[in-house]
Amino acid sequence: MLVRVWSELKLDSGSAVPLYRQLFERIRAKILTGELADGTRLPATRELAGLIGLNRTTVSAAYELLEQEGLIYGHVGRGSFVRSPIAALSVARTQSAVQSQFGASSNGIISFATSRPAGELFPLDAFRETVAEVSASSGLAHILQLGSPLGYEPLRQYLFSRLTEEGALAPGEDLMITSGCQQAQDLVVRTLVQPGDLVLLEDPIYPGLREVLHRAGARLAGIPVTTVGLDLAELARTLQRERAKLIFVTPTFQNPTGATLPVEARLELIRLAAAHGVQIVENDIYSALRYEGSPIPSVKQLALSAGGGDVIQLGSFSKVAFPGLRVGWVVASRRVVEAGAATKQWMDLHSDHLSQAILLRFAETGRLAAHQKRVIESGASKLAAALSACGASLPAGSLFTRPEGGMNLWVRLPEQLDSAALVRTAAERGVSYLPGRYFAVGRPEHSSFRLSFAGLNPARIREGIALLGGLFQEELQRERSGSRAVGQQASAMV
Amino acid sequence: MLVRVWSELKLDSGSAVPLYRQLFERIRAKILTGELADGTRLPATRELAGLIGLNRTTVSAAYELLEQEGLIYGHVGRGSFVRSPIAALSVARTQSAVQSQFGASSNGIISFATSRPAGELFPLDAFRETVAEVSASSGLAHILQLGSPLGYEPLRQYLFSRLTEEGALAPGEDLMITSGCQQAQDLVVRTLVQPGDLVLLEDPIYPGLREVLHRAGARLAGIPVTTVGLDLAELARTLQRERAKLIFVTPTFQNPTGATLPVEARLELIRLAAAHGVQIVENDIYSALRYEGSPIPSVKQLALSAGGGDVIQLGSFSKVAFPGLRVGWVVASRRVVEAGAATKQWMDLHSDHLSQAILLRFAETGRLAAHQKRVIESGASKLAAALSACGASLPAGSLFTRPEGGMNLWVRLPEQLDSAALVRTAAERGVSYLPGRYFAVGRPEHSSFRLSFAGLNPARIREGIALLGGLFQEELQRERSGSRAVGQQASAMV
Repeated sequence: MLVRVWSELKLDSGSAVPLYRQLFERIRAKILTGELADGTRLPATRELAGLIGLNRTTVSAAYELLEQEGLIYGHVGRGSFVRSPIAALSVARTQSAVQSQFGASSNGIISFATSRPAGELFPLDAFRETVAEVSASSGLAHILQLGSPLGYEPLRQYLFSRLTEEGALAPGEDLMITSGCQQAQDLVVRTLVQPGDLVLLEDPIYPGLREVLHRAGARLAGIPVTTVGLDLAELARTLQRERAKLIFVTPTFQNPTGATLPVEARLELIRLAAAHGVQIVENDIYSALRYEGSPIPSVKQLALSAGGGDVIQLGSFSKVAFPGLRVGWVVASRRVVEAGAATKQWMDLHSDHLSQAILLRFAETGRLAAHQKRVIESGASKLAAALSACGASLPAGSLFTRPEGGMNLWVRLPEQLDSAALVRTAAERGVSYLPGRYFAVGRPEHSSFRLSFAGLNPARIREGIALLGGLFQEELQRERSGSRAVGQQASAMV
Repeated sequence: MLVRVWSELKLDSGSAVPLYRQLFERIRAKILTGELADGTRLPATRELAGLIGLNRTTVSAAYELLEQEGLIYGHVGRGSFVRSPIAALSVARTQSAVQSQFGASSNGIISFATSRPAGELFPLDAFRETVAEVSASSGLAHILQLGSPLGYEPLRQYLFSRLTEEGALAPGEDLMITSGCQQAQDLVVRTLVQPGDLVLLEDPIYPGLREVLHRAGARLAGIPVTTVGLDLAELARTLQRERAKLIFVTPTFQNPTGATLPVEARLELIRLAAAHGVQIVENDIYSALRYEGSPIPSVKQLALSAGGGDVIQLGSFSKVAFPGLRVGWVVASRRVVEAGAATKQWMDLHSDHLSQAILLRFAETGRLAAHQKRVIESGASKLAAALSACGASLPAGSLFTRPEGGMNLWVRLPEQLDSAALVRTAAERGVSYLPGRYFAVGRPEHSSFRLSFAGLNPARIREGIALLGGLFQEELQRERSGSRAVGQQASAMV
């Protein structure tokens, strides 16, 4: 059966994407989707080259990329094996899912693995009132009927007003509702990206965007993210080398790094994109979660106030309100929204009406603003707890970002440590996180990890970071004392 | 700007799909998405061949396919022009949307254009009770939180039991929730179909499936649907010629024809698929709407009771309950569901939780069954009204299907009539429908149309069919009397 997996790897020799890159992406997809399970042995390069009729160096180049991303590892004399990031996380995930399903207490695992809001803060009474009002309304039958791919019209009108007030919607622009921001990304990519198109994105990046682009057959170029967001010098060099179709940016509280791009850099980004004819897609889902410092205009607002700039902006209710209700949106030129609506119609006809009506009512009644205020107050103490715990507990030589909001910190451990190899041990001790490699586009950081703090209370944040700090310190001492031998090899094979 | 549209048509010379077919599909997509507006003049074949570096005969072959589908038409001495089915319907759609939005009375347009349930039948009180119960439940916070790509677990468990009872779920199989059946189709295609794969489907077909497959780069082969469903002799010939990846079938009350495949033919379909190694995907969303006659086991049930047969089955609550709540599902082997969950995660993380919880409660409390009973009683009188009005009002020589349930009839008018050309006149008289060409895979039927009767009451059905009958009779007389001249030419250009 495994031979079939390999011999069925179809590459497209007419594509603009080089064969080694195609092969890398196909195998990568099979690892990330779990089709190739953790520990699966890969065929030798010569063997695979024969199976699919490729040059052996092509296969070697693909394996090298896979190894760089930490998705396979070599074992002298035995070959190369899959190291599935999903398998590594499964222990943590299962525990976390069980906990969330049964409302397990603080004895459960402390999960820094998911960038999501805290369930304890959900304003259930306000939500119940909202549901009752929508349910009693005379528009209920309309809500239950099939609708437009553009979304529930009253919600669109509400967002039109809000975005116009904020200077984030130009007269020639339109807006459509999506099933959360994940679908907004998928929709934009399916509408605008052809196989072989070059798309730029931040590196490290939220894997949901990377996977959407991989599946669309895009070529990806990761632009490094520093503590102050996108590396614009590298962006300029990339744009000079080659024509790109889109650039995706999350300029405020980026996922996974938490980095924010300063205003001047946003203006430079707009200038660069205009000069090179590349479409900016701005993901703005975290900016409402600012716990300290002053708000920064979005790239979209800056582009509009500069009198032009065709920026596509993605938004969502999920980070501020209830992610179980899947409602996001896309703001773009009328032409893009029209093409997007045609795409959406074949994706799922339209997004769920009831949740759109409920979130509209929740926002219109001021309940969303009141909830947001509480989330921000609470977020401030979570962020403070996370930053002080990182400072106090992480090993000397660790670096971490210092965002003013959002849900995530990015931690760079001393480079002797491999964050992916330690996931399982951490889970055994009751803490989970996502290793840096999981977020890589082209520059896997083996010693980094994402620390998502927004779903936990300050005490749990401190407890979890202390546990991680202890684990990392122990590992470093083991490294220093040279006693890696058996134990360490076993965890490196995770 | 239009030159850009044409010169940017990227074809893939390394693809298994012939260039003329690729060109046809690219232009077709641009017409169907509205990027090429109604009435747009196409470049002459020689001109387009020069623009994109193709042989002129390749361009001619693509234009021929477009003309066969009724998407372009020639005008002697002036060239070829786009005839957008969307533009032709826009009058009807706008009126229909306005009507549905403002609850307009029976003075509005009579729409046979949408295969959807009647809003008047929605059991609003039962729905409101259900919402209140879900909203009051202790699981609410869990419902509002991010979940699994597989769906809301209690709903999955409910469907597991129901499908197991019905003999439609084997022990090795799994189930995942989707945002309606449209997304279930998209998900299956994105998970299993590679560009260039051959996929078989019924012809005529619901365009939502055709478009999903087009966008995935599949090659399509339409298998004709007769009054008794799929033409199995043609299917057998096609399978002997070439290896297909999937075959999509809606064996009960197919959309758009209403046709139902008899049991013996279902067994033959299973046998053929097994013999040729092609995966069956059964769309089963209409079978619960049987108004008369005896139920027929699904292809999935037959395959399982025969002790094997790996049939993927798609289901949905939308046709029986509330289409504004987007909840459907996929039943398949564990392997396919696992790969599907990985796909779904990058499509929209997971489907809306609240609607899943509400539909579960609606089903568990017996309210769904009670509602279904009323829908079926009402459907019987709608079907009877539609059939008798067709018999009484349509011109001699018309043919129409006689389904025992579902939402649609297929009408074949005398061949002098062009159903697409008459859409606008019909809308002006207050009736809308979708012309046959809109549903074509490879055999456009210019004189056919779909008559979706389930959303209207019997009186409106009779009124609408009488109006259509009158219009068609007039057109036929005009044809016979040879007085086509100016008026007819104008409407043929719609």
